[in-house]
Amino acid sequence: MTLPAPSQDAIRTAWRAGLPESGRRAVAEETAVALTYNRVTHAVMMATPADLEDFAVGFSLSEGIVDRADDIEELQVAPAPHGIELRMWIGGERMAALDSRRRRMAGPTGCGLCGLDSLAQAMRPAQPVRAGLRVSPAQVQQAVSALGPAQALNHLTRAVHAAGFAWPGAGLALLREDVGRHNALDKLAGAVARAGLDAGQGLLAMTSRVSVELVQKAARMGAPVLAAVSAPTALAIRMADAAGITLVGVARADGFEVFTHPERIVV
Amino acid sequence: MTLPAPSQDAIRTAWRAGLPESGRRAVAEETAVALTYNRVTHAVMMATPADLEDFAVGFSLSEGIVDRADDIEELQVAPAPHGIELRMWIGGERMAALDSRRRRMAGPTGCGLCGLDSLAQAMRPAQPVRAGLRVSPAQVQQAVSALGPAQALNHLTRAVHAAGFAWPGAGLALLREDVGRHNALDKLAGAVARAGLDAGQGLLAMTSRVSVELVQKAARMGAPVLAAVSAPTALAIRMADAAGITLVGVARADGFEVFTHPERIVV
Repeated sequence: MTLPAPSQDAIRTAWRAGLPESGRRAVAEETAVALTYNRVTHAVMMATPADLEDFAVGFSLSEGIVDRADDIEELQVAPAPHGIELRMWIGGERMAALDSRRRRMAGPTGCGLCGLDSLAQAMRPAQPVRAGLRVSPAQVQQAVSALGPAQALNHLTRAVHAAGFAWPGAGLALLREDVGRHNALDKLAGAVARAGLDAGQGLLAMTSRVSVELVQKAARMGAPVLAAVSAPTALAIRMADAAGITLVGVARADGFEVFTHPERIVV
Repeated sequence: MTLPAPSQDAIRTAWRAGLPESGRRAVAEETAVALTYNRVTHAVMMATPADLEDFAVGFSLSEGIVDRADDIEELQVAPAPHGIELRMWIGGERMAALDSRRRRMAGPTGCGLCGLDSLAQAMRPAQPVRAGLRVSPAQVQQAVSALGPAQALNHLTRAVHAAGFAWPGAGLALLREDVGRHNALDKLAGAVARAGLDAGQGLLAMTSRVSVELVQKAARMGAPVLAAVSAPTALAIRMADAAGITLVGVARADGFEVFTHPERIVV
């Protein structure tokens, strides 16, 4: 079995001015991806079938299942009839911690916890980011405007999000795409870790809105600046404030807005 | 404790033309919501704190935990320190089925299943929609263009999705908004069920892209037409084809594209 292509050709009927016309359109593929540790499923996510090693590593880091990319002892991408299995093997001690966590798991699936406990667990504060990085307004805008030209899959399909990692003033180092913005950031986190880059020295840029989970992932990476094309939620702002992250939203050609920790942005 | 407002006022620094300016912006609230059955957490979702009774009922229907709105014997919306608990009580037989399902649960959290089994479970085919509804191209466009004026929260925040239910040629019957497009459709499904409307006689319209999970939810509602402003994924197209749903995407002022079951659209 082989991996599906991330872009597919779909047959469609276009209705314009009341008349039908047959044709085709490139659409983004979406695949069920099972993340397993030592052959036990931890999660099933719908994702773009590209950069799946990065996704496996980034998801494992974001979820705190491992602390470093090389804590994953082996990684296989295994296409299956109904999707793709990302098979990871981790050491006995980490697996025991995961088993015990799964037993008292909060979310998304309860497995027995009461509502109050699972809410507290979902909202556990992020580890504060301490990086002393300073960036100029122009560097923030460069990072966000560098996304467009590098979004190869989005050029075809106009339907996927991107997460990028940029060095201040030196352009985009890495970019990853996915139908889901959370997956795009997990892929980027995996790619940054596998490349051995220091997330504390760069900017994260995203094409999407910013929800609280994106802030939690950025904090887990140790990324000091998260800049997005669209607006953040109120909860994402509170979490970024607590996590020491400079949260930038509504980043467009004519400027941007800073919601938390504006001290990192200096002329 | 009271519910948070779905829109909040955030303080921000706007950078335009290289100069900072302090000000405010309305942002969408996002809240951790625990869905519990008989006091056991089933899931924690990040959602807009509005129309939460609809969300509880719609989620329960979409997930197949109940078959009818009144299978939920009692429903309480309980604000808590870290979010909101949606407390539902269901009969002993349904709770036993849910407990047994949780034990062999596929996703998003495995609880012990192997990768192949959990992929098969995530991709289980939807029950085909048999409704013989026929609609005109103009009725499809009316349903989609009716969303904008009714999106009250989006007018404030420009950051939330909407799902609407429209009667062909007779306008929007119901609309629900959420920071997450899946939640918006779950809220709408709950509202349709609670109002006792026949989903087989109307059109679903959404402001978002269409992922496979939205098609699965529409199929579970028995909705024959799902029309969205943006593009579907390839997997959403395959699922809509199998589920007998007319899937419309890229619905704009000048027309739209039909990806599956075009026979329901007639001039």
